Amino acid sequence: MSDLEARVRVLEDRLEIIDLIAGYGPSVDSGDDAAVAELWTEDGEYTFGAASRDATTLMGAEVGALVNLPGHRRYMGNGCGHVLTTPRVSIDGDEALAFNHSLLVLYDGQRWVIERASSNRWELERIEGRWRVRRRVNALLDGAPAAFGLFRP
Amino acid sequence: MSDLEARVRVLEDRLEIIDLIAGYGPSVDSGDDAAVAELWTEDGEYTFGAASRDATTLMGAEVGALVNLPGHRRYMGNGCGHVLTTPRVSIDGDEALAFNHSLLVLYDGQRWVIERASSNRWELERIEGRWRVRRRVNALLDGAPAAFGLFRP
Amino acid sequence: MSDLEARVRVLEDRLEIIDLIAGYGPSVDSGDDAAVAELWTEDGEYTFGAASRDATTLMGAEVGALVNLPGHRRYMGNGCGHVLTTPRVSIDGDEALAFNHSLLVLYDGQRWVIERASSNRWELERIEGRWRVRRRVNALLDGAPAAFGLFRP
Repeated sequence: MSDLEARVRVLEDRLEIIDLIAGYGPSVDSGDDAAVAELWTEDGEYTFGAASRDATTLMGAEVGALVNLPGHRRYMGNGCGHVLTTPRVSIDGDEALAFNHSLLVLYDGQRWVIERASSNRWELERIEGRWRVRRRVNALLDGAPAAFGLFRP
Repeated sequence: MSDLEARVRVLEDRLEIIDLIAGYGPSVDSGDDAAVAELWTEDGEYTFGAASRDATTLMGAEVGALVNLPGHRRYMGNGCGHVLTTPRVSIDGDEALAFNHSLLVLYDGQRWVIERASSNRWELERIEGRWRVRRRVNALLDGAPAAFGLFRP
Repeated sequence: MSDLEARVRVLEDRLEIIDLIAGYGPSVDSGDDAAVAELWTEDGEYTFGAASRDATTLMGAEVGALVNLPGHRRYMGNGCGHVLTTPRVSIDGDEALAFNHSLLVLYDGQRWVIERASSNRWELERIEGRWRVRRRVNALLDGAPAAFGLFRP
């Protein structure tokens, strides 16, 4: 691979990861379990509420199925938006690490309130030429040092 | 065109579309009708409130002129921010499809409230070597299935 | 430098600037003064509340040290998120200009409220092969024309 081609590949990696994570909000808001599952590796994990006593870890097929949980369906019925920022990304060969914020906004009949504001740490890997999430950890930014600690490299 | 050049062109397309959509918020918040008009094709369309009985479609020159509507000038006078996420983008030749979220935050004299949280579907085309919006559809995430349906490919 | 290499370099510049600015929120939320300082040039400036009587300008080492100010430590203790959008970027040789929005969300014990919604103008320069912020100006979107005026090129 030429030097220039190697540089192009890094750019492709970065944009593919940005695009992958940009797909989370639209997929989960529209209740598309297959689209959510596609973002993760088959044995991938998603831990949310990480710094609290209500920490939950979904594994494998459970990740995509989160959109079918009663709580999520209630969010969809009332009106919700999973709003994510573009991640800071660092790539090391076939592995990558990304940090970003996410907001869950809920409709209260008049306006939208911020029900959750979280830090996110995404561990990604390239499998068969495609980037996917191996592990996402999400924690509420409620003052717990473990939450903003997710942002430390 | 070499293989590598074709790959570079795809990256240029993706970044140009991300940048184009990133220009919407700053242009509309600063009341810059010419800058907003530049984002769309000359005969482009913008439908907002799509899933509601108040759906409005602006066409052609009306799109840029939206910043001069009394409602928008009132937002600007009170303090507003049109906050958009980076879109998920798929490109097919000279056409592209992008999905993202947008929040309209308004100043209430003390803090900012989320007046609108919406799903957005952007249909773009490359005209004379430049990407522009042919059609944007925006719907309030208020629980109406048609709103989150915008996110389905 | 070949034509194609020049095009690749522009893409690298754009993605590096997007990534740089994406690092601000995670760095400041986790109180990482060294990481914040790394984003700016050594003699860089950060002005916030620009359009108000409380305008504050930090210079050089003061910029990274902002995370140690009592007000910021209070935000961190209560729970906060600095949520930034992806900037619109224009590059001119070794200088660049970027515009984006930022929200400061604070935990109130139950939900998160938007304490600040701002316009941002970032002036960047490439120094020894790396993009850094020479000057950031941030103003509250409270209706003051000077705030949304930051978005005008």
